[in-house]
Parts: sequence; structure tokens; C-alpha cells
Amino acid sequence: MKTRFVLINTSHAGNVGATARAMKVMGFGDLVLVTPRWANVLNREETIQRASGALDVLKNARIVATLDEALDGMTHLCATAMTPRDFGPPTRAPREHFAALLGGTDSLSKRELTAPVVQGLEADSASKPGGVAFLFGSERFGMQNEDVYRCHVALSIPTDPAFGSLNLAAAVQLIAYDWREALDRFPVQAGAGEPLEADAAAVAGMLRHWQAALTDIGFLDPASPKKLMPRLNQLFNRARLSPEEIHILRGVAKAMSQKVLLASGETAAPAKTPAKS
Amino acid sequence: MKTRFVLINTSHAGNVGATARAMKVMGFGDLVLVTPRWANVLNREETIQRASGALDVLKNARIVATLDEALDGMTHLCATAMTPRDFGPPTRAPREHFAALLGGTDSLSKRELTAPVVQGLEADSASKPGGVAFLFGSERFGMQNEDVYRCHVALSIPTDPAFGSLNLAAAVQLIAYDWREALDRFPVQAGAGEPLEADAAAVAGMLRHWQAALTDIGFLDPASPKKLMPRLNQLFNRARLSPEEIHILRGVAKAMSQKVLLASGETAAPAKTPAKS
Repeated sequence: MKTRFVLINTSHAGNVGATARAMKVMGFGDLVLVTPRWANVLNREETIQRASGALDVLKNARIVATLDEALDGMTHLCATAMTPRDFGPPTRAPREHFAALLGGTDSLSKRELTAPVVQGLEADSASKPGGVAFLFGSERFGMQNEDVYRCHVALSIPTDPAFGSLNLAAAVQLIAYDWREALDRFPVQAGAGEPLEADAAAVAGMLRHWQAALTDIGFLDPASPKKLMPRLNQLFNRARLSPEEIHILRGVAKAMSQKVLLASGETAAPAKTPAKS
Repeated sequence: MKTRFVLINTSHAGNVGATARAMKVMGFGDLVLVTPRWANVLNREETIQRASGALDVLKNARIVATLDEALDGMTHLCATAMTPRDFGPPTRAPREHFAALLGGTDSLSKRELTAPVVQGLEADSASKPGGVAFLFGSERFGMQNEDVYRCHVALSIPTDPAFGSLNLAAAVQLIAYDWREALDRFPVQAGAGEPLEADAAAVAGMLRHWQAALTDIGFLDPASPKKLMPRLNQLFNRARLSPEEIHILRGVAKAMSQKVLLASGETAAPAKTPAKS
């Protein structure tokens, strides 16, 4: 899906750099600036510093004089507006809008995304592919009304009503994240793989081993066991033990029993291991 | 739900300020810094500038010497780690983890959230309420292994495998956003309310009006209408017209017919309006 981020009248160079980074980290690279405060913003020190390696996004970014130029080839326009407008496109949370946009479960059809805007009666079906543009206004004043009015939706990121002061680059980061998640999320870098969960028989065997060991060390009185073993059983159930952890816990039980044998002056024989059932 | 953000060994003052802002915008206010690079980081100019009004979060923030001090009262610890560890808690995407955590649809029970960590066999059921802590490592090196190991989960924000360089404050913003969305999202500031959708009879009446007007202006040949009206019908169906828009479109049709009447030298009589069916 062709995706473009459009910054309109941006004041702070740091936000341009941070925007480039926020886009790239979510796999987007098409950045257009409409009349930024600094004509050389793409080369300013603060921009490059905050971009932190997303220099290709800055290098490929375009600076244009009008919003029209920025929207070339785009078919679905998303305003971002903290302040609702009396008139204009519907206001939606990004997550719901993206789901509707891609799933077609709402008023928005997939057609809006893939076909160019129908100017007359005939769609120019052979023309450039569709695309989604996210528009961000200036840090101080947000988007101008006339820019919001031409959009298909006004995305409003749900923030604390008492403090809605979302940083520009932070807003870009959230939109880029939600859009990437909706499109095709990147894989989570998993660790060493999900551990297998030990089956109930393995847990029960380990618990018998512990019961013997706890008796050996005098913590469990077989004549008055109270609810110790059921409690341990529940604790270990919640922990969802792996086979390796069963092995570790059996080792602990074995060592407990051995310690008792040693302390009692007996020879260090292998600890008794209850038979598996 | 008690929620705390913990920054460990943070280097950049700007990130501390931006973190405060990112938290506050999502309605969170409990920030703890473990051995930040600057002892006076909460009062540095860059911190205050980037906090942009979230000064109460900075004012209430604590600086502590050890992670243990930072985690007082917390029961569910979420590491944030870009690099998976060979050993340690399972790696999860934030969105799924939060859904499981709050919905209880996964291995994590609600009990983990509301009960203090069970140190022995007996939970201290009368003690302080549970809480969720999000831990963030240094900008340069991330979290240390031993800090990750004590956590219940390692949250990994899905990023482009080719560029996973997420800014610290941006990571805080995304986690705060997902956690807020999972807990109880803030309301979207709606605009003037969803417009009503005109019913099919209103659309059909408008289309008859247009049919007459388009005939008047010579665009539609009643003897050879082709598929013009069905096409217009489809176009307006996709647009999901409001009653007000029906009114506007009828006004356009009326003006078209009147213009023809005037141009043909007839007196400016009211345009003929097809009867509603």
C-alpha cells in the first residue's frame, strides 16, 4: 500500500528528523513537507540528529509549495486533527478507521483505496495506483480548516481530555504504528522460542518428589500435612512449568534430601526418587 | 490500574522530558528514573522544553539508585527489549500481551495484576494494590540482562527488521498508547456528530430530479440513456449521502433546469420538480 506522510507548515527541525525516524522504524519512507518554516530543514543539524539513521527518508523527502503538489497520486486522505471541526469529514480513532478501511466493514470500501479519485463519471482505471496520505498540521496551530475539509477522515488519537498535547513526531509515530499493524505487522523478534509446557503427569511426579524432600527436611509433617501440597500444586500450575523447569525443581528436591542424609551422618547416597506414575 | 514508567540509565535529558509528555498525554503520571546520567535531569532546560507542559509529571518523578527501589508496589513487570534474550521471559507484542493481561485469555491471570508477588507460600492479601511497571533501558544499550530476567514479559514493539531504531520516548509513547487503549480508551473528540444517512427513497427522488435536469441541459438523451443513471446511482450510494446533501444536489438540479429555461428565452419559472414517489 502506497503510504505518504505529509507535514504542513512544520516549525521545528527536530520534529522533521524525529518524523523520518518514526516512519522508517515502521517501514515507511515517503515524506513530503509543505512549506516548512526552514527551507533547508532537511539538512539542518537538529533534523539529522533526531533522524538518527533514517537519513534515506530525509534524502528522499520532497519540499513543495502547496498541499496539491504533496498529494499527487494519493487517493485516501487522512487529516490528523486534535480539534474537531464543525464541518468536514467524520472524526475517527485511527485503529478503528484502519480496520474499517482495510476490512471493508465500514462505510469505506476498498475501492477508495485502490482506485484514483473519480473526477467525472469514468474512473481513470489505467492510471497510477492509489495511496493513503496522512496529513499533519503545524505544531502550533494544527491543520487549517480548508485542508481538513478535503480529507476523507479526521483521525483523532484518543488522548487525555485534560492534556491532549501530543508532540508532532509522537503523533506520526502512533499513526505509523497503527497503520503498520493494520497493514501487515512486522514479526516480533522472539527469544529462544516459546518453552514447551510440561504435562500434568510431569508436574505430579515433581510434586511427589518435593513432598518426599519436604518431609526429609522436616518442613512437611506427613501426620499433619495441612494444605501444603495442594497449595504448591496451584502455585506451579499458575507458573505453567516447562520440562526444563520440572528438571530443575526435581534437582532441588534431590539436593534437599541429600543434604539431610549428609547432615544426619549417613553416607552420601543418591537421594531416593519416587517412581513415576 | 496502578501504572509506572521506569527509565533506567537514561542518557538524554530530552528523552526524559518527552517521556513525561508521552505519559501525560495518555493519562499516566508515575515516572521513576533509576540512575539517570544527569542527577539534575528533572530540572534541565532540555527536559522541561521537551516535556511541554507535563511539568507535574517531572515534579512528581523520583530518582532512585536501584531498580528494586523503583519497583516498590509493582506486581507485573514488563521489560522493553529490542534484542531478544536467550533466556528470560517470553517476548510478546504489547497489544496482544495487554489484551491477554486484562482479558485473562492467556497464561496471565488477573491475579498477577492484583496480588502482590507471592514471596513464600502465602500471599500477603492485605497489602498494597498491584501495579504494572514498564521498564526502559538506556538509549545506547537497552536493558541489562539481569533486569530483563526478573520481568514477567519482554515487550517487543514490532518494527521494521531492517531499522528497529525506535527512539526511547517514542517507545514510551507507543506503550503508553497501547496500554491506555487496553485499559479504557479516552473518548475521541467527535466533530459535529455523525451525519444522518439519507434513505433510499430520498436518493431515488434526487436521482429522478437529476435525470430531468440532465435531460434539460442536454447531457442525457432519454432515447439513448446508456448507463448514466445507474452509474450516478452507484456513485451516490458509495458517498452515503446525508439529507442535507440530498437537498444540495436537488438545488443543483433545479438550477440546471432554470438555467436552460432562461437561456431558451422563456420566463424564469420555477424548475419542474418530479413528484416524490
